[in-house]
Amino acid sequence: MRLELRADGLAVEGNVALSTLDAVLRGVGQVMLQNNTWAGLLFAAGAFAASPAAGASLLAGATISTLVAALLGADRGDVRAGLYGFNGALVGIALAVFLRMDAFFWALLVGGAGGATVVAAALSQALRAHALPALTAPFVLVTWAILAGHPGLSHLRASDAMPVAHLAAAAAAPGAVALSTLAEGTARGLAQVFVQDHLASAALVLAGLLLASRRAAAAAVLGALGGTAVGAALGAGEPALRTGLFGYNSALTAVALVALLPSSRWAALYALFAVAATAVASAATSALLAPLGLPGLTAAFVGVTWGALLAAPGFGRVVPRGAAPKGGG
Amino acid sequence: MRLELRADGLAVEGNVALSTLDAVLRGVGQVMLQNNTWAGLLFAAGAFAASPAAGASLLAGATISTLVAALLGADRGDVRAGLYGFNGALVGIALAVFLRMDAFFWALLVGGAGGATVVAAALSQALRAHALPALTAPFVLVTWAILAGHPGLSHLRASDAMPVAHLAAAAAAPGAVALSTLAEGTARGLAQVFVQDHLASAALVLAGLLLASRRAAAAAVLGALGGTAVGAALGAGEPALRTGLFGYNSALTAVALVALLPSSRWAALYALFAVAATAVASAATSALLAPLGLPGLTAAFVGVTWGALLAAPGFGRVVPRGAAPKGGG
Amino acid sequence: MRLELRADGLAVEGNVALSTLDAVLRGVGQVMLQNNTWAGLLFAAGAFAASPAAGASLLAGATISTLVAALLGADRGDVRAGLYGFNGALVGIALAVFLRMDAFFWALLVGGAGGATVVAAALSQALRAHALPALTAPFVLVTWAILAGHPGLSHLRASDAMPVAHLAAAAAAPGAVALSTLAEGTARGLAQVFVQDHLASAALVLAGLLLASRRAAAAAVLGALGGTAVGAALGAGEPALRTGLFGYNSALTAVALVALLPSSRWAALYALFAVAATAVASAATSALLAPLGLPGLTAAFVGVTWGALLAAPGFGRVVPRGAAPKGGG
Repeated sequence: MRLELRADGLAVEGNVALSTLDAVLRGVGQVMLQNNTWAGLLFAAGAFAASPAAGASLLAGATISTLVAALLGADRGDVRAGLYGFNGALVGIALAVFLRMDAFFWALLVGGAGGATVVAAALSQALRAHALPALTAPFVLVTWAILAGHPGLSHLRASDAMPVAHLAAAAAAPGAVALSTLAEGTARGLAQVFVQDHLASAALVLAGLLLASRRAAAAAVLGALGGTAVGAALGAGEPALRTGLFGYNSALTAVALVALLPSSRWAALYALFAVAATAVASAATSALLAPLGLPGLTAAFVGVTWGALLAAPGFGRVVPRGAAPKGGG
Repeated sequence: MRLELRADGLAVEGNVALSTLDAVLRGVGQVMLQNNTWAGLLFAAGAFAASPAAGASLLAGATISTLVAALLGADRGDVRAGLYGFNGALVGIALAVFLRMDAFFWALLVGGAGGATVVAAALSQALRAHALPALTAPFVLVTWAILAGHPGLSHLRASDAMPVAHLAAAAAAPGAVALSTLAEGTARGLAQVFVQDHLASAALVLAGLLLASRRAAAAAVLGALGGTAVGAALGAGEPALRTGLFGYNSALTAVALVALLPSSRWAALYALFAVAATAVASAATSALLAPLGLPGLTAAFVGVTWGALLAAPGFGRVVPRGAAPKGGG
Repeated sequence: MRLELRADGLAVEGNVALSTLDAVLRGVGQVMLQNNTWAGLLFAAGAFAASPAAGASLLAGATISTLVAALLGADRGDVRAGLYGFNGALVGIALAVFLRMDAFFWALLVGGAGGATVVAAALSQALRAHALPALTAPFVLVTWAILAGHPGLSHLRASDAMPVAHLAAAAAAPGAVALSTLAEGTARGLAQVFVQDHLASAALVLAGLLLASRRAAAAAVLGALGGTAVGAALGAGEPALRTGLFGYNSALTAVALVALLPSSRWAALYALFAVAATAVASAATSALLAPLGLPGLTAAFVGVTWGALLAAPGFGRVVPRGAAPKGGG
């Protein structure tokens, strides 16, 4: 066995347990597009800081989906980079929020995280022609399928966090938006990427990002702030803003576009516009899904980021002719 | 005129009526992916066993969509193999279930089955780059469009089988699931592929499959059983299980994946997982569509099978590198 | 500066204001697929005939989306042909109908029309492999996102024209359909392309079409008449028919297919069938979106036209082998 500690994680040879652990933690890191074991470790600590159940389900989801990919013979480089882990990690932690965690929950998680691996492979294949990454779409689709099915399946029991179906979307309760609303909304927005709203989780998420990439950390904070500010400007309810519900999709959009577009002023402006559009898309998905009793998850991030990446090569100021957008995670 | 009876149907030359009949029956056979006239004949007999109206609308739909494809100049080989007939056949028999069969019904069927032919050509074209078959997606889209439009169109009158819109999905009535629930659910699941729940229909569908391909017959039975068992494990209501509502999508997924993936233990395990995922997807589509007053039809089969086929080449154990999944269906 | 007046618009060199004006008016013309400044001028006059607010928001939307495309460095030929203007124009006039036009409205319009430009570039890229134009899909997606989000965003205030969410689709009120219903429905159908129902608007839209292309004008009138007639045959409510709600999607389908398919009797028959299918799809989208409180906009046109264009090369009688459908729009 050979083991080396590097800035981005472990370099292991000859030890399956340790190399799996490395892949699983990189998978947790990829939730925010970081192929970095230590970032994943801090993100996981952030989930545990919210609750042991959240941390355990996050790691279980990442482990199951990574192992299923390895067993089915997926590309080893992709598996080791955590590209098959992050959707399963999110399926795990989201189901832990919206369902009751009885014995049945864990059986379901095996199926859900395994399903996320298959959907991730399917979307990667479908999107290859457009050089688009699948992002967290597999997480969104699998989680929606499981949560949508629950009313007719009595062994899937919803937690109190599950939106109540067939209620109209609540009208905005404007309340007074203060500077503290924006600050807290930005912070909690980082935690909401992992479906949590604890400030301790947010701090650990930020620490992980800083460790992996200062650029990504700055993008995440500015994205969360931008989304929250746009939400406030549009008149979103104060509680929704404060709990970070307008922050997390925009944070992800910012991180993804900063990672995948060339660096330039025009690209930064373009990403800023996408951050604002993500806030509107986020309000739209929540309102459309509320009567179905489903949460919006990261659908707004996925939709807007796909659109922005697809459109970018058509705009010479964003992607200079001849340059291709960077591929990626 | 030259006429020959073969194991898979008629070989006709010089007689338009007979060669059309052969194409129409192959179209009925293709509902379960069998390019086999005799299988189509037995499937049609299964529909007539349920009711003369069901049989007549199935054959009318298959005939109209096949003729429209031939008139518009579609590829003759595809028309003769029934590839333009099965979606029209399903549109026919599904509209006969959900609408009242007045004079207007038959006029509508001409449009609906013709529309299925155009949508089938469109989807085949769109999916060609991914080597995916359109499956029964044209049937699902056309039938949803017609049924969704009916509240504003007074000449389209819903039958009693039509789901009532704007009611919440019924909570699962667990009841006692017995071995007889699984057995009956599996059998009726085969009939539900043709939107019927008669045991006589199921027997004729099984006979048609056995005649065309024992492998397909085994896949259909195991798929229907698997979907029903997973539904039971998730706590689905006993009546839904017994009437085959958790069987038909899973049966189709099994038949399609056994036909289109290479034969191996890993591929079989992969198909089994898809069968289970189809049961969850089926519960999800029913629950999501219930408040819209629409039935789920075979959307769960189409979605899961597309995903599984798209993902397969990314998994070396399911599709060995170098091997391509078989085309088809 | 060089300025020349041509049959299809201005030929300007050395004057940014005039060449922008030309591109903006061509953008308004492209709402009905006409790359023609004078048609755009008459269409804009039609919007002003309905109300100054409608005209101003139409021009503002077209201007913003054209300028955003130019600023981001989109292909200059496409910008000059108005290809980046029509979706923004429609976003402007539709938001003016469904939202209250306070100060906030205009800020929102900048984002919405800019967003339409990005979505248009994204869809053009995604659809390029299939040689499909984006049509008015960017308008539909952006407008739905903004309107769907409004219940949770208190600064977006709905006008009285906004459908009330969570009400079941109204049952058809058959009323007596007279010849005057068809005539008025056809005329108002032309105005409804611009989300208006004034007869003066309809007359100016028709004048613009006649000036640009008699073929397109004939297609629009026959399309609107065909959609209204099919709606009547299916039992749609008289008021919906008379106000042109069954006309506008079908008119657009007819104009697009006549422009993009080869000229032949079979193609005309095929377009006629698509016009009828558009009427059914239009009833379906309205009914499905009614409980969500969203209008159907031109989704039926986009869906059916994409399907018909995708399928056409598979039908030898519609697109003779070897011939490709014309690009465009």
